[in-house]
Amino acid sequence: MSAGLTVTGGLLDGAPVGLRAVDGVVTAVGPDVVAEPGDELLDARGGHLLPGLVNGHTHAAMTLFRGWGDDLPLMRWLQEVIWPAEGRLTPDDVYWGTRLACVEMLRTGTVRFWDMYWHGDAVARAVADAGIRATVSSVVIDGGDEAAGRAQRTQILDDLDRISGHGPRVTPSLGPHAVYTVSPGTLTWLGEVAADRDLAVHVHLAETEAEVADCRAAHGVSPAGLLDRCGLLTPRTVLAHGVWCDAADLELIAARGAMIVTNPVSNLKLAVGEVFAYDAARAHGIAVGLGTDGAASNNSLDLLADAKFLSLLQKHRGNDAAAMPATETWAVATGARAPGLGQPGRLAPGAPADLVVVPADRPELGPGALVHNLVYAAAGSVVDTVVVAGRVVVRGGAVDDEMEIRDEAYRRAARLGVT
Amino acid sequence: MSAGLTVTGGLLDGAPVGLRAVDGVVTAVGPDVVAEPGDELLDARGGHLLPGLVNGHTHAAMTLFRGWGDDLPLMRWLQEVIWPAEGRLTPDDVYWGTRLACVEMLRTGTVRFWDMYWHGDAVARAVADAGIRATVSSVVIDGGDEAAGRAQRTQILDDLDRISGHGPRVTPSLGPHAVYTVSPGTLTWLGEVAADRDLAVHVHLAETEAEVADCRAAHGVSPAGLLDRCGLLTPRTVLAHGVWCDAADLELIAARGAMIVTNPVSNLKLAVGEVFAYDAARAHGIAVGLGTDGAASNNSLDLLADAKFLSLLQKHRGNDAAAMPATETWAVATGARAPGLGQPGRLAPGAPADLVVVPADRPELGPGALVHNLVYAAAGSVVDTVVVAGRVVVRGGAVDDEMEIRDEAYRRAARLGVT
Repeated sequence: MSAGLTVTGGLLDGAPVGLRAVDGVVTAVGPDVVAEPGDELLDARGGHLLPGLVNGHTHAAMTLFRGWGDDLPLMRWLQEVIWPAEGRLTPDDVYWGTRLACVEMLRTGTVRFWDMYWHGDAVARAVADAGIRATVSSVVIDGGDEAAGRAQRTQILDDLDRISGHGPRVTPSLGPHAVYTVSPGTLTWLGEVAADRDLAVHVHLAETEAEVADCRAAHGVSPAGLLDRCGLLTPRTVLAHGVWCDAADLELIAARGAMIVTNPVSNLKLAVGEVFAYDAARAHGIAVGLGTDGAASNNSLDLLADAKFLSLLQKHRGNDAAAMPATETWAVATGARAPGLGQPGRLAPGAPADLVVVPADRPELGPGALVHNLVYAAAGSVVDTVVVAGRVVVRGGAVDDEMEIRDEAYRRAARLGVT
Repeated sequence: MSAGLTVTGGLLDGAPVGLRAVDGVVTAVGPDVVAEPGDELLDARGGHLLPGLVNGHTHAAMTLFRGWGDDLPLMRWLQEVIWPAEGRLTPDDVYWGTRLACVEMLRTGTVRFWDMYWHGDAVARAVADAGIRATVSSVVIDGGDEAAGRAQRTQILDDLDRISGHGPRVTPSLGPHAVYTVSPGTLTWLGEVAADRDLAVHVHLAETEAEVADCRAAHGVSPAGLLDRCGLLTPRTVLAHGVWCDAADLELIAARGAMIVTNPVSNLKLAVGEVFAYDAARAHGIAVGLGTDGAASNNSLDLLADAKFLSLLQKHRGNDAAAMPATETWAVATGARAPGLGQPGRLAPGAPADLVVVPADRPELGPGALVHNLVYAAAGSVVDTVVVAGRVVVRGGAVDDEMEIRDEAYRRAARLGVT
């Protein structure tokens, strides 16, 4: 029998409330909530209670490579800087890079992330230790060679099993990298595994114009069409980017119920040449989330900072100051526009007990509407307290052991040659 | 005889140094600097010493209107929300709105700002009390009616005199709002006043396509051409925005030695439809600075957050991940690419004693290059200590009396009807 957590004195939509959680789930929210004997108590006086943020696409351990080789053309950056270093990564490197990412995400209000990286078991271990939630995939790449992909299958299934063994905050998933790095045969096999085991699939899609052109040339179909042909376009699929989807792609993605996670900062930094068509995607009924992408192509994991980019780029794209209001962006950042990401974006009985407390007295949070000021005026540094699964994991803006985690991650980055 | 300030234990470009300042000016920087008797001492151990940031264009008191009427189309926002409220502003409202802006700018590392707003005397008083530096202008608008402008001339000169009386950290300037709100006759008179008194001029320029089209229709010349015709395009002129300048405009601005301050966040939020052509402006040899614009069209005054927007939008604009590297953006944000803004962007003997201390142990400031991580990974919340004119004005990330200032600003916002 697990005792609960009772939060007192906070404001929800401007009204004073208490909140109680048991076994990681909210059981009561309202003016009359009282603590039960044995509950952990969290005093949120003077703070707004907010749902936690969901980072729908990242490569967490890439904190190890932050600030290294920035401002190079994309292919030089990958070929000369990142890929050689990734070849030297150990599972423990990935563990510590992910721990550092978890520190940065938790401190800035993210309660769940969707990860795709090497050594998924090490990622899952870091998530379990950090107290955050994540959907974790080991990345799958066969270089377009189905035989090479076939040789990896046992390893992929072993990875899945290991990722699954890290407790309830870790959700395993499959991570085919993209249509230009994985053969149709391997994609099809992954689609079958996902269907058999009811697994989420996390895949890059239509990030660059070249990806789409190359896919059409090689397969006679768009990347979305190829994923669909391989059985990978389902309501359990998270498509990262989707920048270069045309209307037919959006219609197909909507018909299959797949989600898109937009990464506005990464898209600008890597100069992918277009802005995600949020309004078109929503008009088709597609669920949309927000991601930072990896720290090497952002270079921050502060999703609240990226929320501002999302609103502002959509205004720019639509040539309309009224486009993408702050309330809509807030809904995207908290998962409310893509419940399949695992967070409902609201605090109510039955919802996961994942919440953020933001002090109401921060100068930049007034005088106007709170959600406007969160999206346009604040950054993740306004977060004081974070609760994940009913447990307090950030207090006073800090995570336990954050300096030791940073030191170990930096030492490993230095060994990998990061300067 | 004024005692100095000695900073010990900080890192400059990675090397341990001391720094001494007397009368607001750096007198020594290096490994062997020692304090003189009577010096104030600042222990910067574990911190990077950095030049302060320069916010080249804002309307500081608009913190009073933050988060109010966001996401409306531009003209509805101005006509229905902002302008009626501005009509009710008292000088004391402007004083407290500016004080709140100074808190937010200082806390995020800005040491100087260029302001254009109503009741310039109240702005200057707030700057003097806040311990920051600013170039302050009362905004001039005659609605295109030269007679109305003529009737304001005594008031404009009186304002100038009052702004000038607030000590060495306040620099007076002239603030003609824009070519679409001020008649050529008044612009010409302002040009004469600026020349006679060697004053800076701060003016909006080419923010929207309509401004340029309307100016050409009314005056047969672009906004830059009209300013030049009125004697307002000089090395003392700061042009805010410059988004819709064509090559001939840039050539003219370069020939006259005027500066442009780009405001990437405001330009996106108000959906002006284009991105400032940084590379073209620099290719013409134009000095360029960075601004936030007012808090009602940003809604933050954190210039370090806006620096990331500057780099990333230029990469997007140029379709080139190598465009606008972090080092170039850092130079712009610190004033080094527009010395006429008043800050040299470096810490050396003879420079103003305006500096920022950033703790080196912030997790997001590693493992790669510091300036990359400042621009791409950090926000103003990394700032721990700020010195302006040799005086410590931010300690531990906080400004004295910041909560009292916020409370008074919020009370005044409420009286103005902000919700």
